[in-house]
Amino acid sequence: MALIVKKFGGSSVATPEKIMAVAERVIREKGPEDRIVVVVSAMGDTTDDLIDLASKIDECAAGREMDMLLATGEQVSIALLAMALQKLGHPAVSLTGGQAGIMTSPHHRKAKIIDIKPERVLAELAQGKIVVVAGFQGITASGDITTLGRGGSDTTAVALAGALKADVCEIFTDVDGVYSADPRVVAHARRMREITYREMLEMARLGAVVMQPRAVEMGSHCQVPIHVRSTFTNKPGTIIREGYTVEEREFIIRGVTHDTNVVKIAVLGVPDRPGVAYKVFSALAKANIDVDMIVQSIRNADKNINDIVFTIAKPDLPQARAIIAEVGKELGVLGIVVEENVAKVSVVGAGMLGSPGIASTMFGALADAGINIEVISTSEISISCLVRADRVKDAVNAIHARFFPEEQETN
Amino acid sequence: MALIVKKFGGSSVATPEKIMAVAERVIREKGPEDRIVVVVSAMGDTTDDLIDLASKIDECAAGREMDMLLATGEQVSIALLAMALQKLGHPAVSLTGGQAGIMTSPHHRKAKIIDIKPERVLAELAQGKIVVVAGFQGITASGDITTLGRGGSDTTAVALAGALKADVCEIFTDVDGVYSADPRVVAHARRMREITYREMLEMARLGAVVMQPRAVEMGSHCQVPIHVRSTFTNKPGTIIREGYTVEEREFIIRGVTHDTNVVKIAVLGVPDRPGVAYKVFSALAKANIDVDMIVQSIRNADKNINDIVFTIAKPDLPQARAIIAEVGKELGVLGIVVEENVAKVSVVGAGMLGSPGIASTMFGALADAGINIEVISTSEISISCLVRADRVKDAVNAIHARFFPEEQETN
Repeated sequence: MALIVKKFGGSSVATPEKIMAVAERVIREKGPEDRIVVVVSAMGDTTDDLIDLASKIDECAAGREMDMLLATGEQVSIALLAMALQKLGHPAVSLTGGQAGIMTSPHHRKAKIIDIKPERVLAELAQGKIVVVAGFQGITASGDITTLGRGGSDTTAVALAGALKADVCEIFTDVDGVYSADPRVVAHARRMREITYREMLEMARLGAVVMQPRAVEMGSHCQVPIHVRSTFTNKPGTIIREGYTVEEREFIIRGVTHDTNVVKIAVLGVPDRPGVAYKVFSALAKANIDVDMIVQSIRNADKNINDIVFTIAKPDLPQARAIIAEVGKELGVLGIVVEENVAKVSVVGAGMLGSPGIASTMFGALADAGINIEVISTSEISISCLVRADRVKDAVNAIHARFFPEEQETN
Repeated sequence: MALIVKKFGGSSVATPEKIMAVAERVIREKGPEDRIVVVVSAMGDTTDDLIDLASKIDECAAGREMDMLLATGEQVSIALLAMALQKLGHPAVSLTGGQAGIMTSPHHRKAKIIDIKPERVLAELAQGKIVVVAGFQGITASGDITTLGRGGSDTTAVALAGALKADVCEIFTDVDGVYSADPRVVAHARRMREITYREMLEMARLGAVVMQPRAVEMGSHCQVPIHVRSTFTNKPGTIIREGYTVEEREFIIRGVTHDTNVVKIAVLGVPDRPGVAYKVFSALAKANIDVDMIVQSIRNADKNINDIVFTIAKPDLPQARAIIAEVGKELGVLGIVVEENVAKVSVVGAGMLGSPGIASTMFGALADAGINIEVISTSEISISCLVRADRVKDAVNAIHARFFPEEQETN
């Protein structure tokens, strides 16, 4: 007699036929005593179509009216899914975010869930109904409709699962779980049976976005196990939870990720005096540019000048280049070098803290493959190396082969 | 410093360009101190498209889920219109039916407005905003979304105008007012400056549907003047109100209407005994078939048998035919004759009660045009004649010419 929240994304409900397939699956998987809540996104490209429609009126429409508009997308899909469940003979009811008690902050288009009032959902479940809830949306204390921003439906599902004290939140998606590396890059990548919230967040930060980090954080906050599984198959996927249920973990490293969406900027010949690094990075922060890896090295101790090297996301390059040029001029630096042919390869694993030698294994794998490391950075549960972009796939494969010998099974 | 509710239908907001045009008009017509509420329908064919979408899941989807679906149509148009008003520099806010306090009965797809809580609308108006409200929809006491059925947006507008004690409710439509006859039939039909609720209702009942009768009834109930005017021009249309503001009414007859959506059924040789008419008409009533004109005449006094002739709407014919065949057999009638080549022509005017000779003028006009009258029926403010359908246009013109001599002006 489980309480399960299931979330289906836009591509799973893109057509009436697909909605019917979702309804069939939900009913098929439901135990006689199970209580089921289904969270859905807008059908297919509906949200983008609505944004296009609004842009014909105003390219920069206000958030409140935009949310009013966008919320219709999920409202259509919940109505249709409830109809489909009823058509198949199962009592069902659709609820908007507001009706489901998803209370949010008033920050339109990027509202945060601040409370969930689950009474209505619980009452409908108690009547034996499958409850279909609109993802991505909520309501403010004053009754205005809000949307949660990117990945919002995942967040709705996990938060609702937390408020309902659900046994599990199942996220149905187009991949069948979390892999030890991108299966398109590493042929022998393994599907993980389990992974911790923290590892999942770190993998997402380092390029492996299976789920939006916000939803994972929400899962960690509410301590709801999140089961990432495929819309297209019935086999189990990966469960994201606080710790491991299996007694022995065979793999300290949970995944090898890579990220090609990076650019390296080197500021050469920066005067070595207090406040210089602050000047460079506060200018970038003011422009909302996230700086990732940072290395400062001594260029010439006699002349008291250093080199500062850092990485940013590719789309930020034009803005960052202008900012750094200005700051560089002010500081009288020797030069600025931008390198776009770079990528980041990382290993992630909560167990690496207690396991010395992870870094050297990683560096060894890269050295044996003849791949040069340009920058290194580490966190508590990850190690990242910047390499040349044209060698990143080799790098991932070399590292993966070292940490995941082919004959072994995961977990 | 007027408070005005304006309603624009689906064809007025069918595209982003048309929505922008509505926004421009609303701002242009607004006096500096005016408080404006705009009620809009769903864009163009949106409602039909949503019904089609639902039918791909379930031909007979439940009302609650259907309302959840259909309500998105108006939600899209209010968001876009509010964006358009803001884009043009005027503060605006969109409100769903529920947010605007439109409280309804829980009868999905045909809910009745039972209360309006205008606090939010008044608060937004007090802040100088143009308030855009979704027509056609409301919310139940338990927070479920309902729709009001046919003509629902007009009803929303008029009811809201009543609750806000608005000075006038302007209904923008594709005709520029209420005419003394259908201008497509009568070249010299005149636009009325004023007409009473009661006359308008009677004209609608008799075939001239400019506005849904429910909205007119609501106007009468709330005593809100309704101004029916064109979306495409700026000239004034027709004001529907309780009485006339002009001192002298030149025309006792306000309109000549016609209705070709009728069928005549004659039940011949019905036994003349108590309860027979009840038997015939209660069987039709049970099947929800509206009977309009009824005439009973003596066929043969010696044999104690009568003929009963009545009219119904065309779409009800197949069902009515089956019912009458069965009842007729039971009663042992002589025969049943269905005549489809009929149409109803009527004159409507609240003043006819105190003006004898209206009926004879009408009959004279028909006689002079060589048109035979098959059935006559009267109400307090109307007289209707059933004529052959192929003569109905001649009939309308003949009667109109008699009551509205060409040289005179209306009102």
